[in-house]
Amino acid sequence: MNPTLEQMHQHHSVRSYQDKPVDPVVLDAILDAAWKGPTSINGQQVSLVVVQDAVRRARIAEIAGGQPWIAQAPVFVAVVIDFHKTAVGAELAGKTQAIHNSVEGFAVGAVDAGIALGNLMTAARSAGLGVVPIGGIRRDPQAMIDLLGLPPRTFAVAGAVIGHIDQDGSVKPRLPRASFVHREHYDTSVIAPSIQAYDITLNQYWRQIGHTDGQPWSANTAETYQTVYFPLTAVVAKKQGFGFDQ
Amino acid sequence: MNPTLEQMHQHHSVRSYQDKPVDPVVLDAILDAAWKGPTSINGQQVSLVVVQDAVRRARIAEIAGGQPWIAQAPVFVAVVIDFHKTAVGAELAGKTQAIHNSVEGFAVGAVDAGIALGNLMTAARSAGLGVVPIGGIRRDPQAMIDLLGLPPRTFAVAGAVIGHIDQDGSVKPRLPRASFVHREHYDTSVIAPSIQAYDITLNQYWRQIGHTDGQPWSANTAETYQTVYFPLTAVVAKKQGFGFDQ
Repeated sequence: MNPTLEQMHQHHSVRSYQDKPVDPVVLDAILDAAWKGPTSINGQQVSLVVVQDAVRRARIAEIAGGQPWIAQAPVFVAVVIDFHKTAVGAELAGKTQAIHNSVEGFAVGAVDAGIALGNLMTAARSAGLGVVPIGGIRRDPQAMIDLLGLPPRTFAVAGAVIGHIDQDGSVKPRLPRASFVHREHYDTSVIAPSIQAYDITLNQYWRQIGHTDGQPWSANTAETYQTVYFPLTAVVAKKQGFGFDQ
Repeated sequence: MNPTLEQMHQHHSVRSYQDKPVDPVVLDAILDAAWKGPTSINGQQVSLVVVQDAVRRARIAEIAGGQPWIAQAPVFVAVVIDFHKTAVGAELAGKTQAIHNSVEGFAVGAVDAGIALGNLMTAARSAGLGVVPIGGIRRDPQAMIDLLGLPPRTFAVAGAVIGHIDQDGSVKPRLPRASFVHREHYDTSVIAPSIQAYDITLNQYWRQIGHTDGQPWSANTAETYQTVYFPLTAVVAKKQGFGFDQ
C-alpha cells in the first residue's frame, strides 16, 4: 500500500482550523493538481475562484447556511462549471455554442467539477492540510455569482475549505462496500440489507464521537431528500443560461 | 513536493494497455479510494460497477463509439449516479424521495460521481497503472443500463479504464493557468487571450507527438459543442426518473 492510497482510505472532513495561512507555494501546487486533471473532450469546462479575503470568506460562510469553518480556514476554493470559456472559444472559431443548453452539458461540467474538487482535496491532504467539501453554496447560487463576479454560462457548484488542522475529524464509516462496488451487474438485492446494517454502524459511530443528535443514515437521508433542499440551483442555473429541456 | 502532488501534476491518459490482469488486491485498494471519498450530506449517491469480462468490455468499447482501449485493458469501472440507494433508504424511513426530480439532485450526483472518478484515477496511477476516463458511454445510456442492469433513478455518467501501461501517453498542455485559477473574482478579461495563446501551444504539442490531424483548442471545442453531441443523456436520464423542471 503506497502513501497516496493510504491517505485516500483515511479521507475525512475537518471543521476546525488554525489561524495560520497556507504557504502560497503549497497552495499553488494544490491548485495545479486540479488544473492538470482531465476534462471531457479536453474542453476544460471548469474554473476555480480562490477566496482568501477574510470578509469575503465570512460572507460565503453565511451564504452556505452558517458554516463557520469557511470563515475560519484561510482558503476557500469555489469550483465553477464554466461554459463561458468554451463559448468564447467557439466564438473565436466562428461558431455558436449549444452544449450549455442541455443535460449533457451540465452533466459534463458537474462531473469535471467533481474531478477538480476531488483533486483539490487529495492534493491538500497530501500536503498535511485539512479539507472539507462545501455544497452549501448552492443554497444561494445568485449570491455566489454576485460575490465572485461569475459570467453567464458558469455556475459555482461546490467548493473546498483548506487550512491547517486544529482539531482533527475522524473517518466516518460508509455504507457496506457491497452496496458501492458491484461486479458486472448492479445487484439491487444488497441495497436494503446494507442500509439496515449501516444504520446500526453509523449510530455506533455517532455515540463513539459523542455526536448525540446523530441520526441513522436512512432517516437523515430521507429527511433531506424528501424535498429539493436547495431549490434555487435550478432557478439560477437556468438564469445563467443552462438548459435542461434537451 | 510530495509524490502524490508530483503524480497529480503529471496526469495523462493512457490508451494502450498490456494483456495482463490487475492484481485483485491492488484493484480493491483502488476501488476503496473511491468508496472512502466524501459525498454530499453523506448521501453516498454514487455506485461503481466493475466490468472485467472481456466480451462485456468489448460491448462497452462499442457503446462508447469505438474506443479499443476499453476492450484492451482488463478493467472498466462504470461510475453511476445512484439515487436508487437513497430512495430505498427513504422508504425504509417511511418517507418518499423527491431529490432525484431536480437539477439540484442531478448536480449533487454528478459532482459526487466526479469525485469518485477522480479518486479512482489518482489511486490507480499511484499504483503504477494507466488510466483513461470515459465519457463516451453517454453516447447510448440505455445500452449501459441494459448491460449493467441499472435500476430506475440511476445513471452511468462516466467511467474509467484501468490497466498496465503498454505505450505511455504524455502530459497535454492546459489552457493558461490564469484562465483556470481566478483570485477573489472571476476575471473575464483573461479568457480570450488565454485561448489564443493555447491554440498555438496545443498545435505545437500536436506536432511534437506527431498527431497530424490535431486541431487548435477553439476549433475542436467549437466543433464538438455547437451541438448536443450526446443527445440521449437527457432522454434516458428522464426515462430513468430524473427530473429537471425544478
